[in-house]
Amino acid sequence: MILVLKKSATEKEAQHIVHMAQIWGFKVNLSRGVERTVIGLIGDERELRDKPLDMLPGVETVLAVLKPYKLAAVEGCPEGTHIILPPVKKGGKKVVIGGPELCIMAGPCAIESRKMLLDLARLVKQSGAHILRAGAFKPRTSPYSFQGMGNEGLRLLAEAREKVGIHVITEVMDVRDLDVVAAVADVLQVGARNMQNFTLLKAIGKLRKPVMIKRGLANTIEELLMSAEYVMSEGNHEVLLCERGIRTFEPMTRNTLDLAAVPVLKRETHLPVIVDPSHGTGHWDLVVPMARAGVAAGADGIMVEIHPKPEEAMSDGSQALLPKTYLRMMDELGRVARVLGRKV
Amino acid sequence: MILVLKKSATEKEAQHIVHMAQIWGFKVNLSRGVERTVIGLIGDERELRDKPLDMLPGVETVLAVLKPYKLAAVEGCPEGTHIILPPVKKGGKKVVIGGPELCIMAGPCAIESRKMLLDLARLVKQSGAHILRAGAFKPRTSPYSFQGMGNEGLRLLAEAREKVGIHVITEVMDVRDLDVVAAVADVLQVGARNMQNFTLLKAIGKLRKPVMIKRGLANTIEELLMSAEYVMSEGNHEVLLCERGIRTFEPMTRNTLDLAAVPVLKRETHLPVIVDPSHGTGHWDLVVPMARAGVAAGADGIMVEIHPKPEEAMSDGSQALLPKTYLRMMDELGRVARVLGRKV
Amino acid sequence: MILVLKKSATEKEAQHIVHMAQIWGFKVNLSRGVERTVIGLIGDERELRDKPLDMLPGVETVLAVLKPYKLAAVEGCPEGTHIILPPVKKGGKKVVIGGPELCIMAGPCAIESRKMLLDLARLVKQSGAHILRAGAFKPRTSPYSFQGMGNEGLRLLAEAREKVGIHVITEVMDVRDLDVVAAVADVLQVGARNMQNFTLLKAIGKLRKPVMIKRGLANTIEELLMSAEYVMSEGNHEVLLCERGIRTFEPMTRNTLDLAAVPVLKRETHLPVIVDPSHGTGHWDLVVPMARAGVAAGADGIMVEIHPKPEEAMSDGSQALLPKTYLRMMDELGRVARVLGRKV
Amino acid sequence: MILVLKKSATEKEAQHIVHMAQIWGFKVNLSRGVERTVIGLIGDERELRDKPLDMLPGVETVLAVLKPYKLAAVEGCPEGTHIILPPVKKGGKKVVIGGPELCIMAGPCAIESRKMLLDLARLVKQSGAHILRAGAFKPRTSPYSFQGMGNEGLRLLAEAREKVGIHVITEVMDVRDLDVVAAVADVLQVGARNMQNFTLLKAIGKLRKPVMIKRGLANTIEELLMSAEYVMSEGNHEVLLCERGIRTFEPMTRNTLDLAAVPVLKRETHLPVIVDPSHGTGHWDLVVPMARAGVAAGADGIMVEIHPKPEEAMSDGSQALLPKTYLRMMDELGRVARVLGRKV
Repeated sequence: MILVLKKSATEKEAQHIVHMAQIWGFKVNLSRGVERTVIGLIGDERELRDKPLDMLPGVETVLAVLKPYKLAAVEGCPEGTHIILPPVKKGGKKVVIGGPELCIMAGPCAIESRKMLLDLARLVKQSGAHILRAGAFKPRTSPYSFQGMGNEGLRLLAEAREKVGIHVITEVMDVRDLDVVAAVADVLQVGARNMQNFTLLKAIGKLRKPVMIKRGLANTIEELLMSAEYVMSEGNHEVLLCERGIRTFEPMTRNTLDLAAVPVLKRETHLPVIVDPSHGTGHWDLVVPMARAGVAAGADGIMVEIHPKPEEAMSDGSQALLPKTYLRMMDELGRVARVLGRKV
Repeated sequence: MILVLKKSATEKEAQHIVHMAQIWGFKVNLSRGVERTVIGLIGDERELRDKPLDMLPGVETVLAVLKPYKLAAVEGCPEGTHIILPPVKKGGKKVVIGGPELCIMAGPCAIESRKMLLDLARLVKQSGAHILRAGAFKPRTSPYSFQGMGNEGLRLLAEAREKVGIHVITEVMDVRDLDVVAAVADVLQVGARNMQNFTLLKAIGKLRKPVMIKRGLANTIEELLMSAEYVMSEGNHEVLLCERGIRTFEPMTRNTLDLAAVPVLKRETHLPVIVDPSHGTGHWDLVVPMARAGVAAGADGIMVEIHPKPEEAMSDGSQALLPKTYLRMMDELGRVARVLGRKV
Repeated sequence: MILVLKKSATEKEAQHIVHMAQIWGFKVNLSRGVERTVIGLIGDERELRDKPLDMLPGVETVLAVLKPYKLAAVEGCPEGTHIILPPVKKGGKKVVIGGPELCIMAGPCAIESRKMLLDLARLVKQSGAHILRAGAFKPRTSPYSFQGMGNEGLRLLAEAREKVGIHVITEVMDVRDLDVVAAVADVLQVGARNMQNFTLLKAIGKLRKPVMIKRGLANTIEELLMSAEYVMSEGNHEVLLCERGIRTFEPMTRNTLDLAAVPVLKRETHLPVIVDPSHGTGHWDLVVPMARAGVAAGADGIMVEIHPKPEEAMSDGSQALLPKTYLRMMDELGRVARVLGRKV
Repeated sequence: MILVLKKSATEKEAQHIVHMAQIWGFKVNLSRGVERTVIGLIGDERELRDKPLDMLPGVETVLAVLKPYKLAAVEGCPEGTHIILPPVKKGGKKVVIGGPELCIMAGPCAIESRKMLLDLARLVKQSGAHILRAGAFKPRTSPYSFQGMGNEGLRLLAEAREKVGIHVITEVMDVRDLDVVAAVADVLQVGARNMQNFTLLKAIGKLRKPVMIKRGLANTIEELLMSAEYVMSEGNHEVLLCERGIRTFEPMTRNTLDLAAVPVLKRETHLPVIVDPSHGTGHWDLVVPMARAGVAAGADGIMVEIHPKPEEAMSDGSQALLPKTYLRMMDELGRVARVLGRKV
């Protein structure tokens, strides 16, 4: 940790800081510059993160040397984490997320009925995608909106998983539902609004079940990594990160899909990175170009929403792809992936 | 709901929309303009909110006529809601939030020790403030940071409440802790990161206990009102709203305190509005000016953090006021309040 | 234009609005809904844009039916505008921007010396790129930073253009420099900070010279189109639009490259769309992935900065590509383009 | 300047950096920490600002020690700059901006007619305000909107100034208009969209005429100070800074008025700080509360728009105060000012 002193800082103030640092068990490097004195504290910086060092008399600015994440940092696994989902049933295929093959997750926003879910599950499976996405519990801005089918939806999801033989991802919103959701899902999803629901993150950290954390609308990339760190620090290292758009002033899209987060994350962490262009844009006609762009930017996977009749969808119909558009997208993603030496 | 059709929309598309509207039980007002045809759907617009009307063939834009909040809307109680906290003990004073007297909430960010809490509780009480704030459960970006004293902190808070005779507000983060927190707190606090934790909001809605909802960092004023609506739609109408800063590109402050939210909320809702300049700015030297500004903007109350030794605080020390600065602030707030015909 | 009246609006207020509308020459469609009365004004909405209709007694909200841009709107040229740069010299090749071949613009951020410019111009030409970019006038946040070589830089740019036989784009910051810049440049560049320098836009509109307008850091896509409209309404229809990142709360990148703006613009306008991943990210290691993503999103061209020795660059060295990285990028862009049926 | 090296940085890379630093004329402080080596460069940091030090092999992060502004920094004039406008005519009163008396600037958004301007000038003068604001040149998002009366407007402004005996402020958008505007205006205004029009700033720096620079919608406080630095570095030290709202995701207000910028600026600079709640909110009913809040936050002055018939205003009518509302505001501002030991 580096403390820049005020121009007006006194010798006594500097000595007090040196003294405090030693009490905390840190060595000190004091350097007098032309306009400012700078004090470096040498030791495990993370122990100082919570101290309000800027409140020490004479301090102007505090500069951190290290990144605050440790387990999620790329150094821990420079070759990249591979998350493996064992086959749904004997003789089935496992899914490897983070390897050369991209992971495609597709399905309806919400589970609306048995028939619709089974039909889409088959479509997704046949298209070559890897994971069926479908929400049983839906976080909705309005209490008057459809809140998902809940446990009944979960039951249908388990049936689709079994019948069609496809892995599933679904959101868990309430820590009290964690066990029932984990009993069905191959991958748990933490939604954007829960990215900093630390209660939920800690509880998931105690499971041994892959989890995909979606970036919150107002959260930095560093904070996303810190949320992964919450899960990992409890022992669960199978974390996927999902870029799904941040909130900005631009009204023409639902969110602003921050695709540069993909190469930034690939540089900073060993965890796989997924892009969700459905929530990231909010309009079906933007989903395909942004899915292609996500793959071109280096994502390890893409998550999209599909619906047989978007105009009748019970949530987020505007961003759902028709099956035929989805199939065209799958073809294009495969071809973009090849440019990067990957495949779908 | 108003649908603007594309320039290229056909007569058949227009008729299909009219037909659908009638199926949904809406009357239709069709108006052919110079460049666009506009279809108004007459009926209870809220039933159409979830329908992806922009997916109907021929539709260019969908314009909503009504605000999505109902119970929180100002029309429901134009004179403003008064939230009354009964006396802590017999013979004590009740607190009225939303009336001519401002409500000041002050105390440490986190409960750190019994002595510190009792000392500050007495200071807060003597200064004329109304509610002691102090966190037992702390939402922290890093899993390695102090997470609060938890249940032991709650116990200390109950003791301070009793001993000093002051009302208390404290945050609940986990729906499983709701009962124990509600047993101590006079006002529950839902933190910014949980503003859209709908699980928690619904559970609080089932209680009969005042709750203060803090605006999330990326949340609009409308979304804050919708979170209040979640609580109210479950039957709990005692909701306070708190502006505590939104996230913007400006790095010199921790958040950007959106004080214009105060007069906007006073126009839109009957619920009391509190301003938190501590989290809103993140720096103690900005807290007093922004507390004054909050009162001048028309807030019904102010929440601030204080600490006897900010440089030793276990969380958020940089934004804590020294007791003497706090007392000066109390004096100034009283004088600004008088300009608006209010008092502290 | 549609006016939603307040619930409390009186019959007299409604009649006053109808009366005013008629004075302005508009027909009126009045529709009484369950909770609100809605008045549609039928006529050329653009004449009403500047009127503060929300100030009319009884009005709650004003909803616009039409987009504010006209000449830039896609309807004007659904097949897309092709901008043609005639050959630099006899026998040379023309450049077509907006056609199936992508347009690549590359070169140094600033012109620093004759040798460096000529060397890079040759590299850019040989790599198959179409336009040399290089700044003579540099907008810098600090008055103490290198401000560009000015007119001497322009002279060198003219020499490079002539000697190497490559088209050039360069920024004009000052309306007084417009003639000298236009004498050299094949395409004028309006920088992000000048996107709403209406003086400059109007002056450029009077020329017959292509111009590329960069999106401002805080500007919406609609405002970018309105800036194009400024140029076009003066008679100059050869406008390129450039997405180069907007300002958000994310500190890990210099700006947030809003790639979804590409398909949005392709839907809204017939003008060609260029992506600048150098300014859009600010870090050289993010430039190549985001250039690929830009092409995959459907951009008509890419603009990047290169430098032979980035660590010695006089401005923006951190985002400059080394020549060898640039050449690898060119190869990758060609391959992504093919997926979309285009080429470099 | 402080360079944090990568964990993987080699001894050779460290020595290369030390070597380069010495070539640049800097002393070096090299400190080996537990996880990182840190190199401090001792000398005039401002000379290194433009160097892409993060491109040096082995460097992970570059941390600046000093603020980039010098002339605008508070140390240059800790007691605060007073800007004095000499009397409009002999026997008239001078205006002091930055002293204990607040400076109120009021008037129409745009000059619309002679009568309207003279009437408002008299009202403003009689109300005790100090400066008449009125635009002759108007920056408008749309080329089809009213662009101001231009030189004819300037002529009317000169007449109002003379006849009524009141100081005037008006915007200059085009560097070619600078002389004619400066011939009329007591204070020049640089609008938000021109905050980084460096051409204009430099030209104004060469005058000896006060200028008020409005913060751009996407500009940080530091960038606002750097724009002041542009003017000051050319010799013109009479600069006022104006907070008028930044662009965020919140749609209920036109901009987000960042009032915390007021105490931040008062801490960082000696220049006077003005708040414009008209542009800062965009709605007349929010202007008075936010004007009060601006004074309470410590602003040196307030700028507001007024109009005799807002519903007929040719620009920005929605944010204009009626004269009677304005007069009530003046009374309230005076009373808030007294709490801070100031007056209107």
